[in-house]
Amino acid sequence: MSLKGEATRERILDSAFRLAAREGLEGLSLGDIARQLGMSKSGLFAHFQSKEGLQIDLLRTGAARFAAAVLLPAFRKARGLPRLRAVFDNWIRWTTAPQLPGGCLMMAASVELDDQIGPVRDVLVAFQRELLATLARSARLAIDEGHLRRGLDVEQFAFEFYGIVLSFNHARRLLRDPKAERRARQAFARLIDSAAPAV
Amino acid sequence: MSLKGEATRERILDSAFRLAAREGLEGLSLGDIARQLGMSKSGLFAHFQSKEGLQIDLLRTGAARFAAAVLLPAFRKARGLPRLRAVFDNWIRWTTAPQLPGGCLMMAASVELDDQIGPVRDVLVAFQRELLATLARSARLAIDEGHLRRGLDVEQFAFEFYGIVLSFNHARRLLRDPKAERRARQAFARLIDSAAPAV
Repeated sequence: MSLKGEATRERILDSAFRLAAREGLEGLSLGDIARQLGMSKSGLFAHFQSKEGLQIDLLRTGAARFAAAVLLPAFRKARGLPRLRAVFDNWIRWTTAPQLPGGCLMMAASVELDDQIGPVRDVLVAFQRELLATLARSARLAIDEGHLRRGLDVEQFAFEFYGIVLSFNHARRLLRDPKAERRARQAFARLIDSAAPAV
Repeated sequence: MSLKGEATRERILDSAFRLAAREGLEGLSLGDIARQLGMSKSGLFAHFQSKEGLQIDLLRTGAARFAAAVLLPAFRKARGLPRLRAVFDNWIRWTTAPQLPGGCLMMAASVELDDQIGPVRDVLVAFQRELLATLARSARLAIDEGHLRRGLDVEQFAFEFYGIVLSFNHARRLLRDPKAERRARQAFARLIDSAAPAV
């Protein structure tokens, strides 16, 4: 594809990404996107042959943006607790980022697609498993660094870590609870505490 | 409204409830519901004047069913830890109940409606706040019974309790993780442990 084609594709994805964060992946309509961009529907079809193809590319876009905003900056921190804390901090910021006026696309899709079958759900599940595995691996490194205790169940740690983020998202975005961030930080501190090495 | 009218209304709500759990509240179409019930659209309109009215009644139906399945049986248990444990157990069962093939309507709506404005969102937020307040009150009673420590932040407790249920829902419904329930129980045990009275 030409450079111009790539640029158009990026514009479409960007517009669709914002629509999907608000309306959900299922609620996306190729017609709406074309209208929003002032394109013809057939012009849009030249880039995305199906709604399903677009949905999958949106999940990929979301995963790439999440990695760039949350994971990669954290991976530049020292292994162990500094890195885990950075993942948490960046994630809290990400969930409420102004570039995500509709919230996290992945979280919305997780609830939306849990009963579906097909390739879009499969892509989402693969990303979510990878994310939990990344959290577990980061906890494993923190054990190796002596920051968390040997014998810690790192998958359990990842499960609880993710639960805090979900509850934060709910308190902040739905309930607009001004204490949401403080609650999330306190929960995270308790998680780290209970995983600390015995003294 | 006549008894027959009430019965029809119940049938509509029941059918809509199952559709909404799968498709979301926004995805509901009065036409689809009418078709599924073999009714005319105007027959359906005699009971629900607007999609918004139906959505609000569905949230009420969901809240009533949740109370009947999760909260009321728990409230028959002794105050304190037995009651808190019963809420948790019943909730885990509810989230995966066969009568909820599309999962919990409230959880789906929470993600779906977080960016909307209007009366449907307001009803949902009121129910969710009430739910968190109920969890906090149950924790407060457990303090009074000497089962949890004095000085425990019961709203923080409710925030973390809810996070475990959300993470369970994600692991079980989206990821189909066979360890989801064990993970949720372990997280809950850790929550209770960390809230236990000093010995």
